[in-house]
Amino acid sequence: MTNSAPNRIIISVDAMGGDRGPAAVVAGLALSADKNPDIGFILHGDQSTLEPLVTREPNLEGRVEIRHTEEVVTMDAKPSFVMRNGKDTSMWSAVDAVRDHEADVAVSCGNTGALMLLSMVRLRKLPGVNRPAIACLWPSRNPGGFNIMLDVGADIRAEDTDLLQYAMMGASYARNGLGIARPRIGLLNVGTEEHKGHPVLKSAHELITGAAENANIEFVGFVEGVDIPSDRVDVIVTDGFTGNVALKTAEGTADLMAGFIRQSFTETFMAKLTALVAKASLGRLKVRMDPRRANGGVFLGLNGTVVKSHGGADAVAISSAVKLAFTLSQSGFNQKLAARVASSGTPRQDGTSTKGEQQE
Amino acid sequence: MTNSAPNRIIISVDAMGGDRGPAAVVAGLALSADKNPDIGFILHGDQSTLEPLVTREPNLEGRVEIRHTEEVVTMDAKPSFVMRNGKDTSMWSAVDAVRDHEADVAVSCGNTGALMLLSMVRLRKLPGVNRPAIACLWPSRNPGGFNIMLDVGADIRAEDTDLLQYAMMGASYARNGLGIARPRIGLLNVGTEEHKGHPVLKSAHELITGAAENANIEFVGFVEGVDIPSDRVDVIVTDGFTGNVALKTAEGTADLMAGFIRQSFTETFMAKLTALVAKASLGRLKVRMDPRRANGGVFLGLNGTVVKSHGGADAVAISSAVKLAFTLSQSGFNQKLAARVASSGTPRQDGTSTKGEQQE
Repeated sequence: MTNSAPNRIIISVDAMGGDRGPAAVVAGLALSADKNPDIGFILHGDQSTLEPLVTREPNLEGRVEIRHTEEVVTMDAKPSFVMRNGKDTSMWSAVDAVRDHEADVAVSCGNTGALMLLSMVRLRKLPGVNRPAIACLWPSRNPGGFNIMLDVGADIRAEDTDLLQYAMMGASYARNGLGIARPRIGLLNVGTEEHKGHPVLKSAHELITGAAENANIEFVGFVEGVDIPSDRVDVIVTDGFTGNVALKTAEGTADLMAGFIRQSFTETFMAKLTALVAKASLGRLKVRMDPRRANGGVFLGLNGTVVKSHGGADAVAISSAVKLAFTLSQSGFNQKLAARVASSGTPRQDGTSTKGEQQE
Repeated sequence: MTNSAPNRIIISVDAMGGDRGPAAVVAGLALSADKNPDIGFILHGDQSTLEPLVTREPNLEGRVEIRHTEEVVTMDAKPSFVMRNGKDTSMWSAVDAVRDHEADVAVSCGNTGALMLLSMVRLRKLPGVNRPAIACLWPSRNPGGFNIMLDVGADIRAEDTDLLQYAMMGASYARNGLGIARPRIGLLNVGTEEHKGHPVLKSAHELITGAAENANIEFVGFVEGVDIPSDRVDVIVTDGFTGNVALKTAEGTADLMAGFIRQSFTETFMAKLTALVAKASLGRLKVRMDPRRANGGVFLGLNGTVVKSHGGADAVAISSAVKLAFTLSQSGFNQKLAARVASSGTPRQDGTSTKGEQQE
């Protein structure tokens, strides 16, 4: 199996990390390949397992190169253990294909902590980036259906200059991943008044205000938790502790409501009957809230992009993460992000941003 | 109008602060008085406005004492301005009735910041409390339907010892407000592993572990955002910044889902027809997610309890806040809380908790 069609975008995929095993991953690739003739894959994992899975998908013929690896990063492995002993894992191999410029983007459903550490060490931070971040897609009222939130858990700390970089990286992601020319950026706080919040937030507010015009972003200032899914912003910037709590709180709230909805349609016989009639409407709701549609946290700020798919991702979710990886790769996202970060300068040292050219 | 029945619990109510004006407040009191013969009110606000409103509610006859005040704290007033100039406002008067031991609990739908500052200054902190907190009721899978979360915004900072006190105060609230004999406490973090999170969280984890047995609580350790509405815990402890973001994120998520639900039932003609049939089931959902049922943030850690009702509270929501105030007042909550805080000792200074008797 080769992968040599010209203009094909190659995605590096860890076949082994997910809860549902390589069959779900390969099925996801087949869905993507069916929809998109310009995509090809380097697939990392156990050759004898993967080869029959790939062979039985006609869509994947000539579009997958399998890289054999002996080992798998388990979900409960400590990141530091993987870093020391994981050289022959599918995850390591998938990240290294990006390091070696065989692909711009890697996709894995494996252990998040291990993937983050591996990505950091193997790809290294972009020049000028202090803290890489994980950005997620957040269901929203915007026409595209999603906002971007970062950092949702790469680092529990963030200085003012880190928050400025998150704003720049998030804007770049919004341009190249969601096609928003002039993204609106909000800085998450406990109130929208400028005097509220931690000192680091006030300082970040000033830095982003100062950098906004040159960076072709619209800084809407402080936003609150209720604004995360709103159509007032496209990108929400916060530290990884707050972002992670917010993300998981939203998941918990959505789960709770979904449970209540199910109960409200099963509590009485009449309700069960109604549920049958309401199936189409509830089905539409399910599609809109489907986390699989938004699958893919993206590690930003490295020499190469890594998309983290949910551990429990099925074929649809994998395909969604692959689509995101393709879009970012095709747009030359990481090169543009690198240029953007470089041009946003080092406000900490000289007090002003370097005026660079406007990049995407 | 007098208020002298023996054994009657008196609640001090700010009539003027809410978005819907005093008519909604008085209607709420009438609902409460109808359900509960043991409740009486001191009502603070403009006499000429309040008197006719009270008179037309037969349930309130002989149960409301009106305290005339000339002024109102507006929603956009700066707390410091209210502190300097607010002596003749209904909010000030409502808090001072607690200060003067005419009532144990005050209820207001007014400006949160002003109410917090007024309460802090007029009631003063309980001996041994460093940072008072705002606790809210959070819809949950527990049998009672609610968990308690604190701090949701009294202070953006919290040290390890503050988090220990939040645990004690939250447990006391769970016992006296929700009737849970041995509350399960969780400390909010970005992971459940003990090595995760900020150093202050690790230290708070140790302090709460050490104090748990003596305090008759069950400390379940670190919990994540998804656990806030779960049945694994009764009380979730966090700093006021994170708590406020989580609360508003949950509100935003619930709003977004409710919007999607409405849309999913109006997108097509068939869906609209279905919605008519599904009305009862959706109605049950609405009741379960109704924020009016959970109305009432409680300021904890002061010499007296203050219940903050939503600014937009209607009669049902006011009545719900009054019910909470009544339950807490009847249980002798604040005296028990004071004893609890005193017995939890000052771990910062001597490294161990003072062993005190077990209080409620």
